[in-house]
Amino acid sequence: MALAKIFVANRGEIAVRIVRAAKELGIATVQAVSAADETMLAARLADEVAKVGPPHASKSYLNADALIAAALETGCDAVHPGYGFLSENADFAAKVEAAGLVFIGPKPETIRKMGDKAMARREAGLAGVPTVPGSEGIVKDVAEAAAAADAVGYPVMIKAAAGGGGRGIRIAENAGDLAALIPQASAEAKAAFGDGGLYLERFVRRARHVEVQILGDGERAIHLFERECSLQRRRQKVWEEAPAACLTPEQREALCSSAVKLAERVNYRGAGTLEYLFDETTGEFFFIEMNTRIQVEHPVTEMVTGVDLLRWMIRIAGGEPLGLSQDDISLTGHAVEARINAEDPAADFRPHPGTVTALEVPGGMGVRFDTMLYPGYQVPPFYDSLLGKLIAHAESREAAIARLARALGELKVEGLPTTAPLHLALAAAAAVKSGNFHTGWLEEWLKSRPLAEGQPGTESEVR
Amino acid sequence: MALAKIFVANRGEIAVRIVRAAKELGIATVQAVSAADETMLAARLADEVAKVGPPHASKSYLNADALIAAALETGCDAVHPGYGFLSENADFAAKVEAAGLVFIGPKPETIRKMGDKAMARREAGLAGVPTVPGSEGIVKDVAEAAAAADAVGYPVMIKAAAGGGGRGIRIAENAGDLAALIPQASAEAKAAFGDGGLYLERFVRRARHVEVQILGDGERAIHLFERECSLQRRRQKVWEEAPAACLTPEQREALCSSAVKLAERVNYRGAGTLEYLFDETTGEFFFIEMNTRIQVEHPVTEMVTGVDLLRWMIRIAGGEPLGLSQDDISLTGHAVEARINAEDPAADFRPHPGTVTALEVPGGMGVRFDTMLYPGYQVPPFYDSLLGKLIAHAESREAAIARLARALGELKVEGLPTTAPLHLALAAAAAVKSGNFHTGWLEEWLKSRPLAEGQPGTESEVR
Repeated sequence: MALAKIFVANRGEIAVRIVRAAKELGIATVQAVSAADETMLAARLADEVAKVGPPHASKSYLNADALIAAALETGCDAVHPGYGFLSENADFAAKVEAAGLVFIGPKPETIRKMGDKAMARREAGLAGVPTVPGSEGIVKDVAEAAAAADAVGYPVMIKAAAGGGGRGIRIAENAGDLAALIPQASAEAKAAFGDGGLYLERFVRRARHVEVQILGDGERAIHLFERECSLQRRRQKVWEEAPAACLTPEQREALCSSAVKLAERVNYRGAGTLEYLFDETTGEFFFIEMNTRIQVEHPVTEMVTGVDLLRWMIRIAGGEPLGLSQDDISLTGHAVEARINAEDPAADFRPHPGTVTALEVPGGMGVRFDTMLYPGYQVPPFYDSLLGKLIAHAESREAAIARLARALGELKVEGLPTTAPLHLALAAAAAVKSGNFHTGWLEEWLKSRPLAEGQPGTESEVR
Repeated sequence: MALAKIFVANRGEIAVRIVRAAKELGIATVQAVSAADETMLAARLADEVAKVGPPHASKSYLNADALIAAALETGCDAVHPGYGFLSENADFAAKVEAAGLVFIGPKPETIRKMGDKAMARREAGLAGVPTVPGSEGIVKDVAEAAAAADAVGYPVMIKAAAGGGGRGIRIAENAGDLAALIPQASAEAKAAFGDGGLYLERFVRRARHVEVQILGDGERAIHLFERECSLQRRRQKVWEEAPAACLTPEQREALCSSAVKLAERVNYRGAGTLEYLFDETTGEFFFIEMNTRIQVEHPVTEMVTGVDLLRWMIRIAGGEPLGLSQDDISLTGHAVEARINAEDPAADFRPHPGTVTALEVPGGMGVRFDTMLYPGYQVPPFYDSLLGKLIAHAESREAAIARLARALGELKVEGLPTTAPLHLALAAAAAVKSGNFHTGWLEEWLKSRPLAEGQPGTESEVR
């Protein structure tokens, strides 16, 4: 049963991405909007708009009942959750299905299983996928944590079982740290996620973040190679690329086939990503968690494989089998993505909403700008600061970085500062050019090289 | 010797394309501007700007001496001629070389040889490439023309040896037509090109226009498959695609390898295109002419092959051998290109310069917009009406057309009418969707379906 009308239960650039994919498939769209989002780009591009609540996300994009009611009222037959918000909420997925709508994503039980990091680790172990040495599931208290940490070896990371996006992670160098941090982390996890459960993992120093894109139809899964997202600030990805510069072809094959094994073990349906730490010194990779949704950085994979992930998510949700075999997927060139945020790199990346008074968008070969911006758009202050993603694809990593720098030079956003100057500086940095970095590199580099006023990083340079 | 600084002896969107390619190669650019073009996009993106004369092209972009003087004065080591203007002028190429500059294109003698259509036909014959049956070179008078036409068989086309862009072509259905048309065509060719020489070719009814993209380094040449450009109006291409929908794999292989034979025979250097007529009823193809320069529609080839033609032109001109073998080139998916002109499709495509009061550019996967437009840009009335090219690439022809339609729906140009509504209508036309058309189809279709006021075709619909 092909879908006829999709409810887009998200906002920003990913809502635009979903509307575009649906349009290209000949499927109508209804865009959910909070009261702060009625003029957003996805609302302008969608066939219909449905008001779902006040600006605060808890009242709109996180309000499952309001979203489902709006989807039913507008005659939709499916809901696309995007990323963030309710995209990895198994209860939401179950409610969508209970309302007779198709949830464009995995089955609720898959979300539940893989969304719980401790359970996901266990599944990985059963699939023969290496995980970071760590506690056997949740540690009940400081004593259990200390025993587990002794077995794993310090330094260890303390992670919230229900956490995500790097939130709630702490590093203990020794037993003293651990005793101090466990109660604190548990209380914070309880407050943030409603669940104080914690687990431990060995902390891999100078690790690189690699992740494998998966597509499955519930029976069969394939990988679309890996991305590297080691350039992070406060554990948020800043710059992503595909493929990873740090892997040999043998490591790539081992990594990607491990991800297919795990995805098939859980009968994965839709697009998903398995995140790994890669230890460059030993060549080991460790599964850390799965994101059971589309990711922000999916375009780099689309550029190097030519596969439209959003369209496939929708087609699979509509009941089509995955019409791609692993042999259909090959890597062509290299793609890099710069997240363009409404933040001021010259003022410690303070979020900075405002009105886009002028906009000039880069173009030409191999350049893609997935954005929520249009001239005159007023960026509301209620949501995250991502404005768009500038992606450059070329025949080699070096050429892709040169193209990204060229495109960043053409981008002109007036009315608010953006992180474009940070990316221009990154594209020129020796470590970035050589691919010689790790997940801690960007923060160290930012400390050593402040993007001060008058340096690249001020609004006047954003073009 | 790698190039350090390129003089861009052209304007509009192709100048932007050249500047972008040079930037990505780390090469500086000097943009030639007429007095009407000082604010154009390429001038904003280039490293330097050089004024070369008054608005009228004969005083600026066609003024070889002024261009070369400006290139020398600004310390350039090479000249990129783009398309149109002096790009196929062998004397200009020779003057550039005589001034000690690199001409980014073929050797002057290749331009001279292949720019003369009668000579090009002769070279094709010597390379074993089929040509349209026609006169042996130039016909001196009506009597010689009549004898040649009898041998070739009516209907015949009368073409100017020095012509181009479809100008000066007439069709004679019989000897009476021929006798009337020959003197008229000769006088017009003399007036337009300074050369009244004419030749004859068999007129292939319902022919399709296919053309093969070539890259050569003077020793070795490869093809980058073909494009189809059968959707034409007044013999100007309107919509182009790659690959051609009308060819079998065997026909494609025969066509493309014939082009390589001819390119290698003339030791072709740089990017060039061999144009053919394809007779769908017989499966025959006939070489008609070569364009010894980059073409407007080159992006569709770039999208389906991943090869950056502009960068290769520059690299080869800088002395690099062609670092691609035929086996490196493969086709991925399908690309379609819509020429966005400053013309009013509702008023017989009258050129309509003006100021761009607002601009919104399509984005997302597989969409490329190569344009000279920016918000506030004042389109001058002195040059051709091409504003940009909207290109969509996807896994199949059907998906590429759906993507083009989606992207056309996002394009918003305010302040002047464009041909975007024509392309929206074409993307929805059954013959276009099925690929069932020929070089005369578009004009017939336009007659049967006027793009009247209030229909798609008026400014308000251009988005």
